[in-house]
Amino acid sequence: MIRYTTGSWIIRIGISMKLYDYMGAPNPRRVKIFAAEKGLELELVNCDMSKREHKTPGFLLKNPSGKIPVLELDDGRFIAESVAICRYLEAIQPEPNLFGCDAYELGHIEATNRQLELELWTQIGTSWRNGPVVAKMHLFKQIPAAKEASDVAVHAYYQRLDEQFAADQFAAGDRYTIADITLLSAVDFASRLVRLPPDETLLNLKRWHEQVSARPSASA
Amino acid sequence: MIRYTTGSWIIRIGISMKLYDYMGAPNPRRVKIFAAEKGLELELVNCDMSKREHKTPGFLLKNPSGKIPVLELDDGRFIAESVAICRYLEAIQPEPNLFGCDAYELGHIEATNRQLELELWTQIGTSWRNGPVVAKMHLFKQIPAAKEASDVAVHAYYQRLDEQFAADQFAAGDRYTIADITLLSAVDFASRLVRLPPDETLLNLKRWHEQVSARPSASA
Repeated sequence: MIRYTTGSWIIRIGISMKLYDYMGAPNPRRVKIFAAEKGLELELVNCDMSKREHKTPGFLLKNPSGKIPVLELDDGRFIAESVAICRYLEAIQPEPNLFGCDAYELGHIEATNRQLELELWTQIGTSWRNGPVVAKMHLFKQIPAAKEASDVAVHAYYQRLDEQFAADQFAAGDRYTIADITLLSAVDFASRLVRLPPDETLLNLKRWHEQVSARPSASA
Repeated sequence: MIRYTTGSWIIRIGISMKLYDYMGAPNPRRVKIFAAEKGLELELVNCDMSKREHKTPGFLLKNPSGKIPVLELDDGRFIAESVAICRYLEAIQPEPNLFGCDAYELGHIEATNRQLELELWTQIGTSWRNGPVVAKMHLFKQIPAAKEASDVAVHAYYQRLDEQFAADQFAAGDRYTIADITLLSAVDFASRLVRLPPDETLLNLKRWHEQVSARPSASA
């Protein structure tokens, strides 16, 4: 069970880790899915991005990058970055393994996860930052040419994934790993908020998406 | 000792791992520094990026992303992505530890390394792709506004690092880790090839740079 805290009103549910989260934000979702797969409970603390709470001086002490998610441990230390938090959780709760069991798998899953982040996720991010929703926030100078290029890159990566899923059950091969969590969060964010869903003709990618979306963790 | 192979002429030096590399490329350098810190020897295979050898159909079988570095194992399997290769090397040669010894350190070093990659390295990359050297290659449509924004982001990150190094000896705290390798490779690439060196007034960052550059591994 996951409970929200708001402001100073904190529901204690007997766990020692707090996750700074914001409903709908894709990176905290990755940690929530990961924790659900591990059977770990996290106390969620709402960090209201619409009020720029992630950029306050107090929050920058938790994470100088001013981003969520951030995990707060019960000794007062913090860990930023979704995948870094997942590595912490993997270390304290090794089963089920989601990062790799031997040297080759550790390398291969990391490589897959990185390519999804560096070649798909960052491009979705560029389309998001230069798209209509963020334009209304007046936070950045919009660069339409950058969005044009990133939209093309996203669709090209979807095509590559569709070809891969003709052979592979999961993102990093034959079992569910952190790479599937990264990809699911990316595709759902792109589809729901960036207006960049995969083309319906990409049936292998669609099969994979339905399969991982059916896991209980996907509701996180 | 590291030896180069060219084409089919391969110097056998009794090791089983080949690294696809290109002199001066910053990401292969990260793996070479990491291997040097571990005392591991790698057989380097020259992948001539100026001839687009990393985009050939044969190379795409090794790494569908068409990038170097790629590690080839003696059983014919491949691992792409610099940090993924480093994780493989950490698993087969745990000492000296460069990724973290306990759950918190594993998380903290990953967080630091990711922020350096996602907030500094990617911005240096944007300045590179939209800068004068790449413009002459006619590979991409140049976006001057993107370079303007990334140049500013790089200098802002240098400033943040300078403040951090007033307190910290190394990138992830009090000992040398993969995060230092990431930062050194990024700063050297930015300084040598992207014309984005840190400002000389950033004395703490300069102290750190001199310190890690004095390690034998930095010559990789």
